Amino acid sequence: MPKPIHPLAQALNADLAAGGCVISSLLSRKGLRAFFPFQGILGQSAEARQTKINATIGTAFEEDGSPLCMECLEGMVQAPPTAFLYAPSSGIPALREQWSAMLARKNPSLAGQMHSLPVVTHALTHGLFLAGQLFLDPNEKLILPDLYWDNYELIFEESCGARLKTFKTFRGRHFNVKGLERLVLAAGDKKVVLLNFPNNPTGYTATEAEALAIRDVLLRAAQAGKRLVVILDDAYFGLAYEKGVFRESLFALLANLHPNLLAVKLDGPTKEDYVWGLRVGFVTYGIKGGTAAHYKALEAKSAGVVRATISSGSNLGQQMLVQAYAHPDYAVQKAAKFATLEARYRRIRRILREHPEYRESFKAMPFNSGYFMCVKPLGVEAEPVRQRLLAGYQTGTIVLAGLLRLAFSSVPLEQLDTLFANLHDAIRNLKATP
Amino acid sequence: MPKPIHPLAQALNADLAAGGCVISSLLSRKGLRAFFPFQGILGQSAEARQTKINATIGTAFEEDGSPLCMECLEGMVQAPPTAFLYAPSSGIPALREQWSAMLARKNPSLAGQMHSLPVVTHALTHGLFLAGQLFLDPNEKLILPDLYWDNYELIFEESCGARLKTFKTFRGRHFNVKGLERLVLAAGDKKVVLLNFPNNPTGYTATEAEALAIRDVLLRAAQAGKRLVVILDDAYFGLAYEKGVFRESLFALLANLHPNLLAVKLDGPTKEDYVWGLRVGFVTYGIKGGTAAHYKALEAKSAGVVRATISSGSNLGQQMLVQAYAHPDYAVQKAAKFATLEARYRRIRRILREHPEYRESFKAMPFNSGYFMCVKPLGVEAEPVRQRLLAGYQTGTIVLAGLLRLAFSSVPLEQLDTLFANLHDAIRNLKATP
Repeated sequence: MPKPIHPLAQALNADLAAGGCVISSLLSRKGLRAFFPFQGILGQSAEARQTKINATIGTAFEEDGSPLCMECLEGMVQAPPTAFLYAPSSGIPALREQWSAMLARKNPSLAGQMHSLPVVTHALTHGLFLAGQLFLDPNEKLILPDLYWDNYELIFEESCGARLKTFKTFRGRHFNVKGLERLVLAAGDKKVVLLNFPNNPTGYTATEAEALAIRDVLLRAAQAGKRLVVILDDAYFGLAYEKGVFRESLFALLANLHPNLLAVKLDGPTKEDYVWGLRVGFVTYGIKGGTAAHYKALEAKSAGVVRATISSGSNLGQQMLVQAYAHPDYAVQKAAKFATLEARYRRIRRILREHPEYRESFKAMPFNSGYFMCVKPLGVEAEPVRQRLLAGYQTGTIVLAGLLRLAFSSVPLEQLDTLFANLHDAIRNLKATP
Repeated sequence: MPKPIHPLAQALNADLAAGGCVISSLLSRKGLRAFFPFQGILGQSAEARQTKINATIGTAFEEDGSPLCMECLEGMVQAPPTAFLYAPSSGIPALREQWSAMLARKNPSLAGQMHSLPVVTHALTHGLFLAGQLFLDPNEKLILPDLYWDNYELIFEESCGARLKTFKTFRGRHFNVKGLERLVLAAGDKKVVLLNFPNNPTGYTATEAEALAIRDVLLRAAQAGKRLVVILDDAYFGLAYEKGVFRESLFALLANLHPNLLAVKLDGPTKEDYVWGLRVGFVTYGIKGGTAAHYKALEAKSAGVVRATISSGSNLGQQMLVQAYAHPDYAVQKAAKFATLEARYRRIRRILREHPEYRESFKAMPFNSGYFMCVKPLGVEAEPVRQRLLAGYQTGTIVLAGLLRLAFSSVPLEQLDTLFANLHDAIRNLKATP
């Protein structure tokens, strides 16, 4: 017999159902059970914060009240020694506020829209896992395009027990909005969707027209009475290199679209601020008609999953980001890094333009953003091409779903011509002597 | 319909069953499914490590091949810029080797015994969660003493769906080995046990005699044909203040005890190296007759859970620890911090000795180690005492299972006398005017 649902979780569920809001009906069984233990050690510690003698805290302090840390570790970082104490499970407040303000600047259409405060996760993966725990029951379907980051399988299928239900990513040179539409309008009241722009592996972001079409499809589904969770993996946000690409997160279009649609935005500095190993990310919720109480309850459930899986994120990582986001050179440095990636993107575009003969050996899949682009070898399978490139050309690529993924994020400008020449040659070679 | 078990997981399960080893029969359904995706992006990237043109990597590099990081962030830490790249899911090899060598030094009885290499987790909580995923099915019982860290409920009950099955922690002034024995010898072939020394909340560690008695009970259960997973939460390892306290981890007694008993050691620098917010921990496995192949398979399953929940731990945190453990002053600084905590422990002992009148208002529970000690108020409940201490004495304490937990880790020496005087006074006061 499972335990009855904890009274704190029941209270959150009631909050989420208040005003006829659909959120509680979108939660998985684990999501319904999730709560943050405000009454336990954490709540009691909070109550004691102002006391003179505070014997509540499971960290250690020196006789003078400063954190009891080893000098050899403190000396390695430019951060207050409080960076070695625990961060709150939901993240340090300054960073959450900062990220929220940055969301507003990066997504002007969010202006005046209400959404939750971001809750800190251990980067994107943990945010995806958290969303899976809260919204997907075992064997429930997660709708997504068929070109996706392979770790989705471990996260959603192996760990949450859900099933991926894919539609073809592209229709010709465009995002396959029809494919999405067919699946969200199929039988079944609850639909959980995952969209990832800029996409890993393709490096594709929906155009402005496609973004609006996606919004319209989801709106129609919501209007038809479907209840939707739309998870947005915005890992590569901001890295768009072409005009006409939708520059904001889909969250800006979905967070206040319809009372039947909960938008779940997952993002973080990992890719866009180039701090992969720092492991900080965010989850932010938006739903039309969502109240402060709804968002507080979603934040509490999210913090509960954080507490149950990792207790809290890296405080040092969070403190470093707070400092970086306030640094006078942050914007300039970020622009310089972006320019490095963009220059590689432009070079690839030029290479493809200047070498029409490459079209005999591979097709470039649509790409306009992010760290990657993909090619489809013509007349041969992708895996032998990868092997041939490794063995004969000292060139490393990734095979995913029959495509070769090329990470231009990690290839210097001057190697790009050779990369594509090698690719062309390896494929011709393979066709000649399989 | 759930997906069939992945071929890589099947191969690991076969490895774990090789030679008639019981490990695969100890795994939960999720544990049986767990695998590390050696063949996906990660495996293909590994194959390309030596290539001249490496387009496999989902991080970014400058034109000169160095990590593309923002200077404002790099400048905050004394660590190579590689600290901003991803760490492997299982942790950076240097740290895993270092921690393994430190385990041997801290636990001399491990000498010559074989066990797995530690796999890096996001500190203790994530290790506990990982163990829950691998070894506990929904509604399966986890046997543990009744005085435990309250987050076990979120981790094991809410997230893994297991049920806590407790026995009384103490029998008189001793650890209740009989209580443990009764539960591990009860009906049922598979038993999952969790032991935590030094204990949160009590600050108690088994004495040498008790440790051997625990070992004997577990051995008898294994000999009787039970299959056991014994999870050891060693968060507060090394903080023992009395003679006769068992100074090594129980892992040293259990890792090679019987082919029916898998010992799962969870530990890390969080408490013992005073880096709570750094979020690095380890999981290490030991079983009598375990082969290199068994341990490799357990490490792969563990890395698979890491990959599925957080992708990888903080690289910066891991690199800082590698540096700290090689720092010439590490041992001296660690000893100084230990001395600070030990002095507070001794003062508390003296206070209790010098104030026999306190015994009328509370009983000190057995304690000899760690960050905490607990008292049981006499004649009144714990919660009103906590409230009274907050309201009338500017004193913060934690109530857990009818006890007041006092964290001397966070109370300066000079405040300890007042802390206990306040406690005594608040209880007397409460009895007089409830």
